Amino acid sequence: MTRDLALAEVRLTPILVADPPLLNTQGVHQPYTPRLIVEVVTADGITGLGETYGDTRYLEVARRLADRLVGHRVSDLNALHALDVPVAADGVADGVGAGGLRGVQNAGKLLLSVVSAFEVACLDALGKALGLPVHALLGGKLRDSVEYSAYLFYRWAAHPEGAGGERDDWGAALDPAGVVAQARAFVARHGFTSFKLKGGVFPPDEEIAAVRALAEAFPGRPLRLDPNGAWSVATSARVARELADVLEYLEDPALGTPAMAEVAARTGVPLATNMCVTTFAEIEEAFTRGAVQVVLCDHHYWGGLRNTQHLAALCAAFGVGVSMHSNTHLGISLAAMTQVASTLPGLHHACDTHYPWQSEDVLTERLVFDGGRVAVGDAPGLGVALDRDELARLHRRWLDDDGALRERDDAAAMRVAEPGWAVPATPRW
Amino acid sequence: MTRDLALAEVRLTPILVADPPLLNTQGVHQPYTPRLIVEVVTADGITGLGETYGDTRYLEVARRLADRLVGHRVSDLNALHALDVPVAADGVADGVGAGGLRGVQNAGKLLLSVVSAFEVACLDALGKALGLPVHALLGGKLRDSVEYSAYLFYRWAAHPEGAGGERDDWGAALDPAGVVAQARAFVARHGFTSFKLKGGVFPPDEEIAAVRALAEAFPGRPLRLDPNGAWSVATSARVARELADVLEYLEDPALGTPAMAEVAARTGVPLATNMCVTTFAEIEEAFTRGAVQVVLCDHHYWGGLRNTQHLAALCAAFGVGVSMHSNTHLGISLAAMTQVASTLPGLHHACDTHYPWQSEDVLTERLVFDGGRVAVGDAPGLGVALDRDELARLHRRWLDDDGALRERDDAAAMRVAEPGWAVPATPRW
Ligand SMILES: [Mg+2]
Ligand SMILES: [Mg+2]
Repeated sequence: MTRDLALAEVRLTPILVADPPLLNTQGVHQPYTPRLIVEVVTADGITGLGETYGDTRYLEVARRLADRLVGHRVSDLNALHALDVPVAADGVADGVGAGGLRGVQNAGKLLLSVVSAFEVACLDALGKALGLPVHALLGGKLRDSVEYSAYLFYRWAAHPEGAGGERDDWGAALDPAGVVAQARAFVARHGFTSFKLKGGVFPPDEEIAAVRALAEAFPGRPLRLDPNGAWSVATSARVARELADVLEYLEDPALGTPAMAEVAARTGVPLATNMCVTTFAEIEEAFTRGAVQVVLCDHHYWGGLRNTQHLAALCAAFGVGVSMHSNTHLGISLAAMTQVASTLPGLHHACDTHYPWQSEDVLTERLVFDGGRVAVGDAPGLGVALDRDELARLHRRWLDDDGALRERDDAAAMRVAEPGWAVPATPRW
Repeated sequence: MTRDLALAEVRLTPILVADPPLLNTQGVHQPYTPRLIVEVVTADGITGLGETYGDTRYLEVARRLADRLVGHRVSDLNALHALDVPVAADGVADGVGAGGLRGVQNAGKLLLSVVSAFEVACLDALGKALGLPVHALLGGKLRDSVEYSAYLFYRWAAHPEGAGGERDDWGAALDPAGVVAQARAFVARHGFTSFKLKGGVFPPDEEIAAVRALAEAFPGRPLRLDPNGAWSVATSARVARELADVLEYLEDPALGTPAMAEVAARTGVPLATNMCVTTFAEIEEAFTRGAVQVVLCDHHYWGGLRNTQHLAALCAAFGVGVSMHSNTHLGISLAAMTQVASTLPGLHHACDTHYPWQSEDVLTERLVFDGGRVAVGDAPGLGVALDRDELARLHRRWLDDDGALRERDDAAAMRVAEPGWAVPATPRW
């Protein structure tokens, strides 16, 4: 082997990116949300890019991991999971995380989310070094484009007075008509043909009405509703019953595997999750209890693109479907999601993405949705390039922040508008 | 990408390789056993090697697959599983295969065994094209050598009069003393430190005595016994009880998942299998019933090295151990087994291999066991080279055969010595 695939340098750049006032059951998105950009540089000067959560607890682990990686070969991806990186338990709430809406948080999950960014960055660098797209390092694509779903949110037109933030032209969406108008804009701008509504914001009957309105506006299109575990088993079962004829799947109606299993027993509507099954350790109970019919994979949760492939194979073995989850992310992650999604044989649902909501990115060229699909590039690596000026600008925003925005906290953001707001106890309805 | 990774040619060479008179519950190994050598050649003239079963039913599918592969890129490994290759059902016994001792046979399993050889050959070619060892294409090795177990067999000193075959210097092993002597020879020649006895040949008490003798001769060493499903649940439970203090695991004592589950419920000795779990479809029942505690992966069964990694991840998620199975194979497969084994994080048992029994190989240089371990090479691809003269000689043997040896049939081989022999009904004891 003539190329030197060993890492000479790892750069971590925390940034704050503009985020619209999207509502969920815990509150509202902050005007700016933290994200971490990872650059790995080989001895030959090839740079690979990765992206993950940017909150301080992730950043601290990333720094520890980065220190271990100089000299590490970018092809040694399995070994990334064997590195002994201490994760301070005190930085992690051992409960349902407020910002992440990603189920129970623990040190292991935090580490996997950090490792995922380094794995993607290593794959990007390796692909560039070899002249191969990332998908070819994952066994090759099975499709030339990946379908995404329009991710609809209840939202305000703008962040509250005094909260700051960027303005956009999407307008408010706070009722069925607003949701349908938003969906039409998604179709007009990006061509999406399936729709997901983030729920858990209004009483269930209002959200049922919104999904009904979508079904009328877009007859026959796949529809999903995701209240992030805000409902009781009884409410979940009722919503499933009332929307059974139009739902592709119902996502995390109730919190935790036992509740999901109870809901599943009461409905024929498939249940999807990115909350009760987010690690390999959580699979056995959920699958043996029949709690979920679709797992929403997310390479940030599962520790990278190769673990995402393992997960998909596992789900296939158990007859469980696979789709893809998204949190607020930029183009590096969308490129990674698209590359791995192109390799999954059993991907029969459109993937989720927040990307259309992100007005800012750190790429020289934004990724494009055409007919709701992102093309699977064959350029080396992820096929994206860093806009260093923009990265510096968003990093400057992070540096200038007094700390208030460096931890994503949707409840705190909500308190700007509603001073007494607290994360509602679950089940909320 | 400047390299042309498309396949310009695929060569299939069926061969007959010498095999000693190793006994199992169905009969005895033939003097020569069929094997298929696969060569894929890229447009740039890089050749990749693979190896799989050589019986006619595999060869026919391989020919059909080969026809589809010209123009296929060696990096398109996922797509190998999506090729539409018809497998004639009439070539496949829908029951327990006589020769393979690999559980229920069906068209899907046959296809996976053929695809595995092409996947390995593509990985070998891709690695050579990129200057990377196969393990680096699988995420990188986690260890520099892979441990193998001494695979002990009851055997005759030579094949029966009139059966032909090569002679070797191992001598007979038909009782505990013979088994121990064979084990000592394995240690002297290859340095193995763990031992597996192929059982199901003699009544259980004789095999228990042989394992006891091994335990006395090699105190504290891991020991395994594999009767290939020859026993009843009651016998299995009794053997497990009597050998509980010395067995690392008991392998396929009874046939099929329900029987294995019953045995597992009666013993604390871990049960391993390469018979009731040999495809992803068979996992759910076996795992949910607790029928097996160790899955013996085999890339020939599971469809290649990447599926083997998926399997290992799946087993880890369910707290099931992983070890590695072997049928009669040559050095190409041993190199492939070693490369993938080096990447499996949860490989806590020595792997099985028949390789020490194979006096012939198609490589210019045989692989070597040092302290029972095979070094994980970093040379490009599998790191092995084809001896074309030897390949031609073994292919000539296949051409010259009148058809009697082209299908492995251990029962037919046994009938040369015992004319009335038939595969015993199970449970045999
Ligand atoms: Mg969700
Ligand atoms: Mg076996």
